[in-house]
Amino acid sequence: MSITAPAGFSASGIACGIKASGAPDLALVVTSDGKPVPAAGVFTTNKAAAAPVQVSRAHLQETGGRASGVIINSGNANAATGAQGKRHAWGMAAAVAHELGIESKAILVCSTGLIGIPLQFEPIQSGIGELVGRLGSDIGNAQQAARAILTTDTRAKQSEFRDNGFIIGGMAKGAAMLEPSMATMLAVLTTDAVATSEMLHCALQEAVASSFNQLIIDGATSTNDTVLVFASGASGHKVDEASLVVGLKTVCTDLAYQMANDAEGGTKVARITVKGAMDSVEALAGARKVASSLLVKCSLNGQDPYWGRIVSELGSAGIDFDIDLVSVSYGGVRVCSEGSAAPHDAAKVQLHMSGHDIDIEADLGLGDGEASVLATDISHAYIDENVRTS
Amino acid sequence: MSITAPAGFSASGIACGIKASGAPDLALVVTSDGKPVPAAGVFTTNKAAAAPVQVSRAHLQETGGRASGVIINSGNANAATGAQGKRHAWGMAAAVAHELGIESKAILVCSTGLIGIPLQFEPIQSGIGELVGRLGSDIGNAQQAARAILTTDTRAKQSEFRDNGFIIGGMAKGAAMLEPSMATMLAVLTTDAVATSEMLHCALQEAVASSFNQLIIDGATSTNDTVLVFASGASGHKVDEASLVVGLKTVCTDLAYQMANDAEGGTKVARITVKGAMDSVEALAGARKVASSLLVKCSLNGQDPYWGRIVSELGSAGIDFDIDLVSVSYGGVRVCSEGSAAPHDAAKVQLHMSGHDIDIEADLGLGDGEASVLATDISHAYIDENVRTS
Repeated sequence: MSITAPAGFSASGIACGIKASGAPDLALVVTSDGKPVPAAGVFTTNKAAAAPVQVSRAHLQETGGRASGVIINSGNANAATGAQGKRHAWGMAAAVAHELGIESKAILVCSTGLIGIPLQFEPIQSGIGELVGRLGSDIGNAQQAARAILTTDTRAKQSEFRDNGFIIGGMAKGAAMLEPSMATMLAVLTTDAVATSEMLHCALQEAVASSFNQLIIDGATSTNDTVLVFASGASGHKVDEASLVVGLKTVCTDLAYQMANDAEGGTKVARITVKGAMDSVEALAGARKVASSLLVKCSLNGQDPYWGRIVSELGSAGIDFDIDLVSVSYGGVRVCSEGSAAPHDAAKVQLHMSGHDIDIEADLGLGDGEASVLATDISHAYIDENVRTS
Repeated sequence: MSITAPAGFSASGIACGIKASGAPDLALVVTSDGKPVPAAGVFTTNKAAAAPVQVSRAHLQETGGRASGVIINSGNANAATGAQGKRHAWGMAAAVAHELGIESKAILVCSTGLIGIPLQFEPIQSGIGELVGRLGSDIGNAQQAARAILTTDTRAKQSEFRDNGFIIGGMAKGAAMLEPSMATMLAVLTTDAVATSEMLHCALQEAVASSFNQLIIDGATSTNDTVLVFASGASGHKVDEASLVVGLKTVCTDLAYQMANDAEGGTKVARITVKGAMDSVEALAGARKVASSLLVKCSLNGQDPYWGRIVSELGSAGIDFDIDLVSVSYGGVRVCSEGSAAPHDAAKVQLHMSGHDIDIEADLGLGDGEASVLATDISHAYIDENVRTS
């Protein structure tokens, strides 16, 4: 499964010494022959974009969307690290490229971890030999890579999609509550389909919009968020764009759920659906406002179906809204109708709230717009995880 | 001190039985002779505005900005309560007016507490007699009123301003972390200055913008937020607008600080200042983004000067931003310069972080725009307070 399932890719992961704990912290995913293939990326919109983001963007632009692979370190974001940080990000690509005997610009770079701490380059430099030496296409290799990109995640996140003719594999790291916490989200996708860079780019944007962007609110992304896709073409299957979108969406949606499910200190994953909005853009804005509400997250943690907080968030979401038309349901049980409390089976709602996956649906009663996003709860553990960086 | 310090006002507060705990939950502030005086209000922009907000707005409009006073209940927000909720809000005004022998439209209404729970009108109805009977202009009367409007606040919030010739008094309730939590914020201000409704309205808007709005992010206000001011004119002092603004700002700023200082589970009050922005609007947007960041709130709680989170929030605040020009200081000690870590006295920063009042300043290095907002931290106690409504 995962990133080495599609033919033509190798991966590895090691502990090079960036993390004081000795946990794995350096990963590599490359084409098995080292040759560049069509590739595309979606990057953070944060204006404080980290050095590796700048380098990856530049490399893809320089090559017209072709790359051999990506080196990823965890334990340090190499963000807010100035000119030296940029040199280190370039250096990571150069060191891998040198070891593989290819051009630097064919290697992309990702980093995740603390912001503003100078990256120690020596552990990475001296680990490159081992990292390349351990490259392989087994499940174990993919797993090592998937583990080496984690930060406060508790488990590796991998996914796979198989169609008639081609395979897509993916790995990701998320953790934290994502928006509004802005934990870095990284994902690497591989496919053995034959596709152009342009097709990959369009399909990736579409897939990200309906998966990871259901977790992460636009404009509030971290300094390092990156999603990359590489197409080896090793299957010989010329994929059409629609099929490619379906496959990428499937893998990205699965990885997004795994992220929500492994959120720091999280005990619940809630799907917030807003329907009956004036249009889908307003529905999405409403759902995101609810999903990012700290009070809603507290209610989820307490298994409390306090729909008043849902209505209050929707009323201040900057979208068309008429309280007298709103209804709210938890797990399919309507608790609010025409903007007021509705008689309902409280025991049934309570049973639903005690589960892990919660469904909250608000119908604005205005139009046909509908959208869903995933939300996680907040617990003491979340605070404990984030009060101190050291 | 407080709302009965200016001549011409009386107040009272009782426990009528809305709160199951038996704590005070009904307050009244009126002119001592019951006659309407110039008055003004600033209300929530939430489209799910509660019934009392709708009634107060309508009354002020009907009278052209004249009112005798306000009745306030705590323990129930009377929000998302439909047509019945509206009848109850009208009923509260009518019952007080009847007891005082004045017109209903001269009484404004505020409610604060849980959303979506039908308000029990009987306790209020049967408490009105006692509420009016206890009206008085002593410090004790003002204190009773200030206590009766609290929800999860731990202490009453009162303030006073004296100039040559006139006095302004104020009381408020806040609690919770305010934005992004959207706890209801209520404030009632009184003055014995002679002022027109128009002057009061303009001065109040200006004062709110530079005080409470430093706590509460526009567009994300609760269903019930209300700030009211009444001018008895009893001092005979014709105030000019500039002096009125100074006085209202002083009282509102003090009340806003008291709210931040009494935030649910809060242990710190941080002033976030953004300077060097392109203009003051961008500075405010940046400061608000930082102040509402859950990760920044976690860092404050952990006394951790993790400036990377400050830079990351500013980079995604939708304002002009160049990481290479940014500097960040904690308590006047620069920890980040030109977007990278700056050598500094870590012990001095740590000492500052261990205090109650924290100063964080980010200089964007772009222009002259400057703005400050207050932020509170988040702790286990905050979550405990908000996981269950019952």
